[in-house]
Formats: sequence, structure tokens, C-alpha cells
Amino acid sequence: MIRFYNANIMTMAEDCAVQRGELWTDGDQISYIGETPAELPAFEREIDVRGNLLMPSFKNAHTHSAMTFLRSFAEDVPLQTWLFEKVFPYEDRLTAEDVYAFDRLANLEYIASGTTAFFDMYFYPDSTVQAAIECGLRGVLCGSINGSAKDVERLNDQFQKFRKIHPRIGYRLGFHAEYTSDESLHRGVAELAHAEKQPVYTHISETKTEHEECIARHGATPAQYFESIGLWEYGGGGFHGVWFDEADRAVYRRNGLWMVSCPASNAKLASGIAPLKEALSEGVNVALGTDGAASINALDMFREMYLGAVLQKLRHMDAAAIPAAAMLRAATVGSARAMGLHDCDILAEGKQADLIEIDLHAPNLQPTHHIPESLVLNGDRSNVMLTMCAGKILYENGEYFIGVTPEEILADTASRIDRLTG
Amino acid sequence: MIRFYNANIMTMAEDCAVQRGELWTDGDQISYIGETPAELPAFEREIDVRGNLLMPSFKNAHTHSAMTFLRSFAEDVPLQTWLFEKVFPYEDRLTAEDVYAFDRLANLEYIASGTTAFFDMYFYPDSTVQAAIECGLRGVLCGSINGSAKDVERLNDQFQKFRKIHPRIGYRLGFHAEYTSDESLHRGVAELAHAEKQPVYTHISETKTEHEECIARHGATPAQYFESIGLWEYGGGGFHGVWFDEADRAVYRRNGLWMVSCPASNAKLASGIAPLKEALSEGVNVALGTDGAASINALDMFREMYLGAVLQKLRHMDAAAIPAAAMLRAATVGSARAMGLHDCDILAEGKQADLIEIDLHAPNLQPTHHIPESLVLNGDRSNVMLTMCAGKILYENGEYFIGVTPEEILADTASRIDRLTG
Repeated sequence: MIRFYNANIMTMAEDCAVQRGELWTDGDQISYIGETPAELPAFEREIDVRGNLLMPSFKNAHTHSAMTFLRSFAEDVPLQTWLFEKVFPYEDRLTAEDVYAFDRLANLEYIASGTTAFFDMYFYPDSTVQAAIECGLRGVLCGSINGSAKDVERLNDQFQKFRKIHPRIGYRLGFHAEYTSDESLHRGVAELAHAEKQPVYTHISETKTEHEECIARHGATPAQYFESIGLWEYGGGGFHGVWFDEADRAVYRRNGLWMVSCPASNAKLASGIAPLKEALSEGVNVALGTDGAASINALDMFREMYLGAVLQKLRHMDAAAIPAAAMLRAATVGSARAMGLHDCDILAEGKQADLIEIDLHAPNLQPTHHIPESLVLNGDRSNVMLTMCAGKILYENGEYFIGVTPEEILADTASRIDRLTG
Repeated sequence: MIRFYNANIMTMAEDCAVQRGELWTDGDQISYIGETPAELPAFEREIDVRGNLLMPSFKNAHTHSAMTFLRSFAEDVPLQTWLFEKVFPYEDRLTAEDVYAFDRLANLEYIASGTTAFFDMYFYPDSTVQAAIECGLRGVLCGSINGSAKDVERLNDQFQKFRKIHPRIGYRLGFHAEYTSDESLHRGVAELAHAEKQPVYTHISETKTEHEECIARHGATPAQYFESIGLWEYGGGGFHGVWFDEADRAVYRRNGLWMVSCPASNAKLASGIAPLKEALSEGVNVALGTDGAASINALDMFREMYLGAVLQKLRHMDAAAIPAAAMLRAATVGSARAMGLHDCDILAEGKQADLIEIDLHAPNLQPTHHIPESLVLNGDRSNVMLTMCAGKILYENGEYFIGVTPEEILADTASRIDRLTG
């Protein structure tokens, strides 16, 4: 059992209220949140939080972790050039061992920035699973026809293989996007989703071109088309949704789908600014993800929260467009639920102990007039003092506890990067 | 003498090229940059940089440092409400001692994020000077009629008092903005500028309303009106410039003025996105500043560089809108020159030793395909390992060397904040 005391605790059970008290973990779970009781049990470790903040860890609801190898490889080029000349040819060279190495590099960033779970769509899912398990993270794989699974049958094979492979690993049905697959495949995934009673996820309406070409092909936007073929009978959602109109958001609302926004990626690739203000006010479920490191370039949920908030102000030319705290909720509770991680969404007794400690004494967070807003608008990853996943401390005061050193991981990736991009 | 060896050095003399070698400092100056010579002199300290990057420190070309006390005080409210209900009434309560305390809080942030000089417009300039000198930073005061100086005579008094008060302190003529003063005052400042052969700085075209109201009042935009009354005979510039049109930028170009952009402030307050792509392609001098902590909320030049780059992509819906490296140059060389700090703009023998060490081994900067772009698009202030100003190390590996501890500064500010905002 680990005891955190003298804490400010933001459970995020209801809102972003902060309470003083302590939090205990027992194994992988939270066993107590409340005031200091008259009698204390024995603990293996007691941590004086000195008034710092304990809160649910971030969950990154859209990423391609292993794309770390292409980080800063091609900057300031148009999207099509970027994708077809600077991404696809290099991805073709990847081996399973490469993906494992680049996933570990991504995991360093997740952990140090307070992210304990990620929703990953890429090649070689076995590698991603291995790296996540070893580093102590939670990984949810997103089925990726055109990526790791080539057809519905293989998607089902992966689903059956990975769905219960490890307590910290999950799998969700999915495919890359409407524009990279055909209707028979979409209908096949829908059938599988019905048979398994599973939600489905896909890239959706990321660029204007893609959104409009779908209308030309199917007479409907991607969201409306997918609803019409029954893809979302059991929920799910989509990544980006930059070009969603009111009808698209209505599809999301009535099906309880997750709009996983990736503001940094949409900015760097000039895809646009998603209608988050509208989505939030209409009651659409909103989560946040980073997308891959080649298009953002930092696997950092603080950046996503910040951009999620301020880009809405610019989009609407209204400084009061959305409350910053809505982005804090999206990056934690929202993203967890989008990935099906209902057991580590908030801090509560019996929930998984997936939490972070934020240094409220850091100059950039002082004064603390409003803690949730401060985290979004002035917080950054250097404020993360401790990251815990499933009751295990993975990071504390700048040091990793993941069974491998950053130096070992970097040495491994360096030689592979030379081979792949040299 | 201090020796940095095994370094990657980006002098920024011409472009953002990186060379291997070493850099020595002697007193407050850089005494050598080059390869390791056969014979070495005696050093008081030798620092193995282990392949990390040495580069010019950041210079923050627009700030109101002491506004740290209102950080996160009022979020997500419209600009007018923010200014008239949540800023002005509280600023009225400030004492000189308060400004000193809140400046020291800001200085902690500057130093840890690699900023060694700031261009400050606020009340109680003596306090700002004292805090900067004590903390080892460079401060350039910007005359602020409506702020610390109430009329042209007092502006001149301040100018004469502060212009040569200390080697690390400067003073530039200025006033708050066109819309907060009248034509006789603008003409008075122009006369003073002519008499003293000095550049002039002011807030300019930050909001659409302000820009348009100036046209209604003077029949010209602020930039064109100021040029017409000879305000910029000896150069200078303006803060924000969000609503600049082509003619405004032409005024800037032909007068060699500095367009000091503050993208984070303009985003949070929903003022808009400045036309930086146009300005850069037309040859306008571009610098970057944070603005005050109440409107950004982080005194962090990494954020400004990042937003400076990606917001242009969104404004133009073009992923290739501007090269990210242009923002690195604006935040260092550009900002230094905008403030008149020509002796610490780049790394060169004989220049002031104002530099930072960046941890290129940090996971978020790996791999290092393109260092300048990486700094802008994935770098953050946690990558700053060492900050040196005028040859003195102010910050190294998370520790401050400024004659006062962060704890002392925070204890001092906490009681004042309770009094001011309680």
C-alpha cells in the first residue's frame, strides 16, 4: 500500500473541484480517498505531497506511437507531399522490432508528461503490446484495416487475440478511414461489430477534401454514411472530426460516439480547427489525442488541452468560447471512456490507480487562482512530478522506473533511424 | 573563464546551421567559438555538453512581468470584462514592493525557460530594474505613458534616469497605445524621439476594434497615422500588429520597425492571428513576446515560437505557410534586436555570453532530424538545461543561481496575492 498525504485531490468524479486529503493505493487500485483517519494502517511507502495536486492521469485517445521515428523528419511541407513522399515510403521499411523500439521512445514521452494510456493505430500490434506491458502503460489497440489488419477476417483475428491478452491491454474494432477502404469493407466491419457487440473507431472528416469526396461518393458525409450502414450500433467514434457539421454532430450525439479531437495535428497539417465549442454545447462526447509524432510533434496532452481551448477562442473570435476546464476533462475522463477504460477514468475507491502528481509550487502555476484553468492554460509537462499506472510508479522527479533506461532506448532507436531514413 | 566542450553550436549568425565544437566565456563575454585547439588555457570551470546544443538565449520582446499576480485569475471571459473588471481594479492596488515581488516570480519563469532578457512595460519601473539586476537578467524598460510615466516630461525623466543605470538595463521610449492617449501626446513623444534620436514602441492594432476606431479618429490606421506624425524617424516598432494590412506592413518595412508578435496572448484574448507569413515574405522585422502572464498564461518563448509557426498554417490553411525556423530566429536574434540588444543577439566572439544549453537527448527531441524545426515544433522549456546571462550561469539542471530561492520568492508573493485579490 502506498499513501499520498497532504494532497490536493481532483477526483474529476463530477467536476474539477479540489479537496484536501489523502489517497491510498493497494495493489493496482485506489483503496482510500478522504481525510486523514485517526488510525493508519501500515504502508510500504508514504509520500508527502506537500499540497501538490493528485489527479487522474491523462489518456491519449489517438496516436500512432511508433511514428516517433519520423518526428521532425519533414516540416513545413504540404500534407500530400508529407504523406506520400515523407511518410509512406519510410513506413514501408519498418520491421516489428523497429516498431517496438519506436514505441518505447514514445512511451518515455507519455510517461513523463503524465499519460498512462494510449489508443494506438499502427503496424505490428504485437510490438506495441510488448512495449506497453514492459513499460507499465495501458495500451488500447485500434483495429486498423490498411494498417495491421488487411481485411475483416484478420481484424477479427486480431480482436480475438488481443482483447483479453493482458489486464492493461485492450482492443477496439476499427479501420483507417472511409477514403482508404470501400463500402464492402465498411459493411463487413459493421457486421463484425454487431456480432461482437463492439464499438468501432476510424479517422473521420480530418481534411476538407476527404469530407467532400465522401459526400461525392456516398451522397453523405462520413459520419452520416457510417450511421446509415449501422457501423455504430454499439458506439465508438472517430478521430479528428475537423469538418463536422451540425448533422454529423447529431449522429455522434444520438449514438453516444466519441469525437476524439487532435488539435495540434490539425494545426500543423493545416487541416483546420474542429468545432469543439459546438460539440460541447450540443452534448457530444469529446476526448483528446495527440496523433503521431510526425504530425504534431510532441506526444504531450498538455499541448492538446491548451490548443483545444485557445483555438476555439480564435475560431469563434470569442475569449469565452469554451471553458478551459472542459479540455482537462476531455484529456482525462473523456479520453479514458472513449477508449473503454472505465476503470481508470476518475479517482475513486476501487478504481485503478492511474494518477499523476502535479507540482503546484512551480512558478508557472503560481498563483493558483483556478487550478483546472491553470493546468490547461499555463501548465506543461514539466509540472508532472509523478506518474502512476495500475498502482505502479513509472516516473518520479524526473526518473523513470520502467525496467529500462532512456539511454538504452535512445541507443536502440538511433541505429534504426539511421537505417530507415539514412 | 568557462569552457563548454563537446557541443553542437547554433550561433545564429547567418542561419540556423549547427557546428560541432566548443565555446568559451570570459567575464560577461564569449571569448572563443571553434574547434578544440591544441593547447587549452586554464578555466575556472569546464562543462562537457555531451553533444547538446548551445544557442543564443531567448529574448522576450513584449511583457508586463508583474502581471504574474493575475495569472489564471480570470479565464474564459470576454476581453472588455477581463480588462475592466478583472485587471484594472486590481492593478490599482499594486505597490512598488508588490511589483518587485511579482517581477521576481516572472524572472523564475524567464530563467527556467531560457529567456535572459525581457522588454517590459508596467508600473514602478524601479522595482523591475531592481528585480532584474538582482536575478542576473537583462531588462529593457519600455516607456509607458498611461502606465509608469504620465506625460512626455515624465517619460523623458524616466528615459534619462534608466538609460544608463546599469549594464544590463535599458530604456526605450514608448507609450501604451494610440487609443489610450491623444494626438498632442503622440506628437510630444515624436518630438522627444527626434531630440534624443531614439526609437519608439507602442501597442498597436491588437484588436480589430482598436484598429478601426483609429481609422475613424485619424483617417488612417495606427501604423500609418504614427508614421505621418514622424513618430518613427529613428525606428522602433509595435506590439501585436494583429490587424496590420499591407500598407501597415509597408510602413514597418520602410522604417525598419519591429513587429513584435504575441501569438499566445492574441489567441487567449481572441484578438486574432497576426499576418506573420506576409510580414516575413515582405521583409518586415519580426520579433516575439509573451505579453503579461494574465493573458497567456505562461512566460514561455517556446509556446510563442510554436504558436507563431502553427497558427500561420491555420490562418493560411497551408502546412508550408512559414518555415518553423523563422520563429526560432524571431525569438532570439529578432527579439534581441527589437529591444536594442545588439551585443547579445547571436553567439560570436566579443558578444555578451547570453546563451542556453538544450538537452538534445530528451525523448521529445529525438530523433534530431532537423534541430531548428524540432526546437519550435516539439521543444519545450523542460529541454533547457542551462541558462547563462552576461557570462553568469543563472540556472542549471533545475537549480537557480540567483541569490534567492524559488521558495522565498513564492512565500513573498503568496501573502501579497491574498491581500490584492482576496
